Amino acid sequence: MKFRFLTAGESHGKCLTAIIEGVPAGFSINIENINKSLAKRQEGYGRGARMQIEKDRVIINSGVRHGYTTGAPVTLVIENKDWENWKIPMSVEPVNMDDPKTARLAEEKRITRVRPGHADLAGVIKYGHNDVRDVLERSSARETAIRAAVGAFAKGLLGEFGINIESRCDIDKEAIDRARQEGDTLGGMLEITAGNVPVGLGSYVHWDRRLDGRIAQAIMSIPAIKSVSIGAGEDVARLPGSQIHDEINTDYSRKTNNAGGIEGGMSNGMPIVVKAAMKPIPTLKKPLKSVDIATGQEHIAHYERSDVCALEAAGVVAEAMLAIIITDAFLEKFGGDSLEEIKKNVEKTA
Amino acid sequence: MKFRFLTAGESHGKCLTAIIEGVPAGFSINIENINKSLAKRQEGYGRGARMQIEKDRVIINSGVRHGYTTGAPVTLVIENKDWENWKIPMSVEPVNMDDPKTARLAEEKRITRVRPGHADLAGVIKYGHNDVRDVLERSSARETAIRAAVGAFAKGLLGEFGINIESRCDIDKEAIDRARQEGDTLGGMLEITAGNVPVGLGSYVHWDRRLDGRIAQAIMSIPAIKSVSIGAGEDVARLPGSQIHDEINTDYSRKTNNAGGIEGGMSNGMPIVVKAAMKPIPTLKKPLKSVDIATGQEHIAHYERSDVCALEAAGVVAEAMLAIIITDAFLEKFGGDSLEEIKKNVEKTA
Amino acid sequence: MKFRFLTAGESHGKCLTAIIEGVPAGFSINIENINKSLAKRQEGYGRGARMQIEKDRVIINSGVRHGYTTGAPVTLVIENKDWENWKIPMSVEPVNMDDPKTARLAEEKRITRVRPGHADLAGVIKYGHNDVRDVLERSSARETAIRAAVGAFAKGLLGEFGINIESRCDIDKEAIDRARQEGDTLGGMLEITAGNVPVGLGSYVHWDRRLDGRIAQAIMSIPAIKSVSIGAGEDVARLPGSQIHDEINTDYSRKTNNAGGIEGGMSNGMPIVVKAAMKPIPTLKKPLKSVDIATGQEHIAHYERSDVCALEAAGVVAEAMLAIIITDAFLEKFGGDSLEEIKKNVEKTA
Amino acid sequence: MKFRFLTAGESHGKCLTAIIEGVPAGFSINIENINKSLAKRQEGYGRGARMQIEKDRVIINSGVRHGYTTGAPVTLVIENKDWENWKIPMSVEPVNMDDPKTARLAEEKRITRVRPGHADLAGVIKYGHNDVRDVLERSSARETAIRAAVGAFAKGLLGEFGINIESRCDIDKEAIDRARQEGDTLGGMLEITAGNVPVGLGSYVHWDRRLDGRIAQAIMSIPAIKSVSIGAGEDVARLPGSQIHDEINTDYSRKTNNAGGIEGGMSNGMPIVVKAAMKPIPTLKKPLKSVDIATGQEHIAHYERSDVCALEAAGVVAEAMLAIIITDAFLEKFGGDSLEEIKKNVEKTA
Repeated sequence: MKFRFLTAGESHGKCLTAIIEGVPAGFSINIENINKSLAKRQEGYGRGARMQIEKDRVIINSGVRHGYTTGAPVTLVIENKDWENWKIPMSVEPVNMDDPKTARLAEEKRITRVRPGHADLAGVIKYGHNDVRDVLERSSARETAIRAAVGAFAKGLLGEFGINIESRCDIDKEAIDRARQEGDTLGGMLEITAGNVPVGLGSYVHWDRRLDGRIAQAIMSIPAIKSVSIGAGEDVARLPGSQIHDEINTDYSRKTNNAGGIEGGMSNGMPIVVKAAMKPIPTLKKPLKSVDIATGQEHIAHYERSDVCALEAAGVVAEAMLAIIITDAFLEKFGGDSLEEIKKNVEKTA
Repeated sequence: MKFRFLTAGESHGKCLTAIIEGVPAGFSINIENINKSLAKRQEGYGRGARMQIEKDRVIINSGVRHGYTTGAPVTLVIENKDWENWKIPMSVEPVNMDDPKTARLAEEKRITRVRPGHADLAGVIKYGHNDVRDVLERSSARETAIRAAVGAFAKGLLGEFGINIESRCDIDKEAIDRARQEGDTLGGMLEITAGNVPVGLGSYVHWDRRLDGRIAQAIMSIPAIKSVSIGAGEDVARLPGSQIHDEINTDYSRKTNNAGGIEGGMSNGMPIVVKAAMKPIPTLKKPLKSVDIATGQEHIAHYERSDVCALEAAGVVAEAMLAIIITDAFLEKFGGDSLEEIKKNVEKTA
Repeated sequence: MKFRFLTAGESHGKCLTAIIEGVPAGFSINIENINKSLAKRQEGYGRGARMQIEKDRVIINSGVRHGYTTGAPVTLVIENKDWENWKIPMSVEPVNMDDPKTARLAEEKRITRVRPGHADLAGVIKYGHNDVRDVLERSSARETAIRAAVGAFAKGLLGEFGINIESRCDIDKEAIDRARQEGDTLGGMLEITAGNVPVGLGSYVHWDRRLDGRIAQAIMSIPAIKSVSIGAGEDVARLPGSQIHDEINTDYSRKTNNAGGIEGGMSNGMPIVVKAAMKPIPTLKKPLKSVDIATGQEHIAHYERSDVCALEAAGVVAEAMLAIIITDAFLEKFGGDSLEEIKKNVEKTA
Repeated sequence: MKFRFLTAGESHGKCLTAIIEGVPAGFSINIENINKSLAKRQEGYGRGARMQIEKDRVIINSGVRHGYTTGAPVTLVIENKDWENWKIPMSVEPVNMDDPKTARLAEEKRITRVRPGHADLAGVIKYGHNDVRDVLERSSARETAIRAAVGAFAKGLLGEFGINIESRCDIDKEAIDRARQEGDTLGGMLEITAGNVPVGLGSYVHWDRRLDGRIAQAIMSIPAIKSVSIGAGEDVARLPGSQIHDEINTDYSRKTNNAGGIEGGMSNGMPIVVKAAMKPIPTLKKPLKSVDIATGQEHIAHYERSDVCALEAAGVVAEAMLAIIITDAFLEKFGGDSLEEIKKNVEKTA
């Protein structure tokens, strides 16, 4: 991947960090647009109390000078506003367990009751942990805040070429209220679109270069997403070819878009349309039956302050992941080290 | 990817080739099992005449000695039994167009009417071709034959550790007959499962290491697949958390498997269950409206001998892709350069 | 690369950052050892004044809890102690150029005279910059401070398995003094060794898996390194085979180590011995003839506070890069998600 | 790597194979130029008898139609002309060891005496083999024949942009004759150059994007290469900065090229000059002391028909590896899916 990035950080750690490498020079950064994405990720009907504590804002620590990218790696940081309360249990350095207050603070955040639907059980087995917190702090959806920042950065870059990424979801507020009352949770369906994408991103020539596959990985990698589809999705399994395939006009336009903008693993010039199914949040107020890994006894699962529905937030993250994949495929096709050079290459092709 | 491979070859070219790199030594190859997968890919209700011409058989050209892998890259080749008839139009070297017979053979395979639902239009634009054959020969699903071979190889390797990969699909033979009569085509739903997968393949620690994301890319990369889901799939968007998440027994077993064997991007010990929606084959006998790229005129799409439904074949390919991803994640977790060393590492962990 | 990392940050930016991904869980971090490497990188005969300003110390922001790695990505940060003086010229956000003081501060750090031996000229052409500072802030050897931190982390991990990485160089203090007096600079030869490396890291089976090649890339990627050799190095071009190849004793030990611990692209159990030639620092007090890219006129190169000789510092960075490559190859061979699991795998193999 | 490839095949196996992926469309292939490289690799003073048996010729099995690349992966094959004599000992399938003749043919090629300087000992330990042939067949320099073919392909592509790759070495024919008489072997120094490379391939922004590092890996990955240097090489460790750095003229040209065409990890427009030290061939007619891994007894090393000096052959392979790296960096910078598109992008930049 030419446009590559790594993310780091725990849910209640000091901060989330991302480094983006493969950024063209000369691109004007709009920090407020990134912050708007972060704010939108925190909103939405069904979010719990935690979202009030934090007001995520991105800090840029490298790769940008006087508002423009230099070509160097870009560091994005989101600080945890609640860090003061977590300094002991989440300390990087060993804490003094001989001090009773410290020991209590450290101990009371320890978790041994694994939650169904989470990384908890497989995570402690894989990494040999005996405190579930060592898993859940990283497996938490909190990590997606920094992906949202990286994605907002990518969206800004794509915006220079007229490509726009959007998402929408149908939120049933009544159903959410009902679930909240019952201590239950809800998921839902998302739709993410990319408009004005040039023809020929991705390729059919090798399986791992197909744009649909790369999008599928990126969207499925969002916590709680269990299904990804392009265009007409599962309907393609039910309808005959004559009703599915999008006839081509002499100007290469189409009347329909069942393909969702991708044919042969390439963008075909129509809007890219992705749908994703999000499962309900696995942390239930009315907890599920589970086991305590310390005692081996049956126990209800640990409950840590959580949301009833995070569908709108997932939409922001899905936009981010789609923007990242399209940016990568775009830079792969058009090359170029600076915004100006890329624009020349794009023009030449058009 | 540690277990990596490249594939090459055209639909009517001389042969398909794959090189697999990252193969442990000391693994006993069963060529007949690979050939069985290839045969199964060619069968299935709804396949057209071409499947009778070919009897795909794999040839191994490297990496195996006296039946055992040596650790060196493995070359797999599937020859095209029909090559004699395509030598001129698909010649690697320039052909003598001054010779009338040669010119006619070369010209009559030229295609300029792009087919909706295929790579045709985006492909010629991307690569600057003026003969659609330069696109379709590689974008053809024929390429999946060699993926099936690579996957059968991976399945054999996983079999050494008791992991088994299977697929199934409900074929409605009447609907296929009806579609055939109407010159139409059909897709369908596939289910692919991986049983006996150890806990902890993949990881939640970074988005691109999640097993569900990697599986989604691999399955979505199969031509005609438009939707991929894990476990309960799109149902997770409709049901509340209390009905979706799989409660954990004290022996870490589960009564339900809505998660489809993956939580937090890791295998959780339950069977991995993947569903995929396949679109109808885009080459219709009763062709769709399209355009001739040579003339710019409206024209019905080119029809090249094709199938009505290839769902069972897609199942074989989907098994292959799932096997490849699980092999990669398996070797990543357990390390080891020989089958014996891997077995020791697996035992120690268990 | 399983053990992968990205670095970011400018020489006079707010901080340097690295994210390391692919870290096993359960490894005890020794922050002071990392800081010792950072201190050692700043010392050495021939360093200039800047080294006194900074006292690099690493801050860990993720992936470690109560002294142990969790398996999550590890964030390392080194803050720039001199940042206060660079806030305006290196501001991420646009600065108010209408304010005379701000404008002066921003302008006076602008550079247009490119320095021979640096990234300056190729950098401004590649990225389309008109201020050389947009290049040199990232191309500066300052970036190697964070590589030293990543490498010290890797060294700690290798230490758990008895593998030790060291470097040495012959510093001619008189020559350095003479160069300083003459406004000149010096390079020198480095030797880096890795002891107690198990047999079989890297592989001959594919060119990009060879340990010697991976080491060569890592060492050559250090700014100012122009030559990398393994074992007897260029002597192998002069001596006959009977004097070069290391005869094998019945206990598989050797009396000589001209191979430098690597045969067939794999570690062979002998110490890995790498030599590297460092060129003199290209920023000379008695500057070289060059050009001003703003005027196109001949001009002496820009001089920015610099060192006379940074050989010892380069040794620390070379140790870091060698440790990183060996860690990657080690984890690739032995697999495992936690220190405990890796130790079991290693034992089994031994 | 955008321009990626895998190679496969054993020294006495049926054939060598490479698949190249990431090839632009519309590039005219010159098979005879590839064959010339293969022939040149087989020539040179000091080669043994085997070189007479084989007359390597490349076969292209995919990715090229009527002389032009299509954008699809390119398969290159070099058949082993001596395969008939190795069918039994190198059979992919198990052979019938009950048949005395078969058993004898299979057994007589078994090797247990490991050769110093080769992959033999580390290889059998790593992969758990008890027949050294399972190692040496892949670790043999024979594998570089297919790299030479891939590199010749890349050279052809670079030639479209005026970039030319050459190598030279000083062969001391008398010394070779002397070594042959004494049953000894010789290495030597190689110089490989790339002329007319545009400014700005590779980058200083991240260590693994530096062109010098990527070249170092590629060259060091050639069997028997123990040292790689750029430009003035080890001399940079001895001379002061004022004598090393290449002053820049107002037209950006240089009078000297001690940097060897690379500054800051980027091509700077001057010829890229790489030097490499090759060790003597480790298979000596007057064999070295070693051990028999079957008996544990001291024994002289196995001798298999070999060369006295293969320096000129290594030059061809080094050209190939340099061409591959420059092609990759070139396509990374300029993007584009067809030769025509790349040419437009290059023009625009110039």
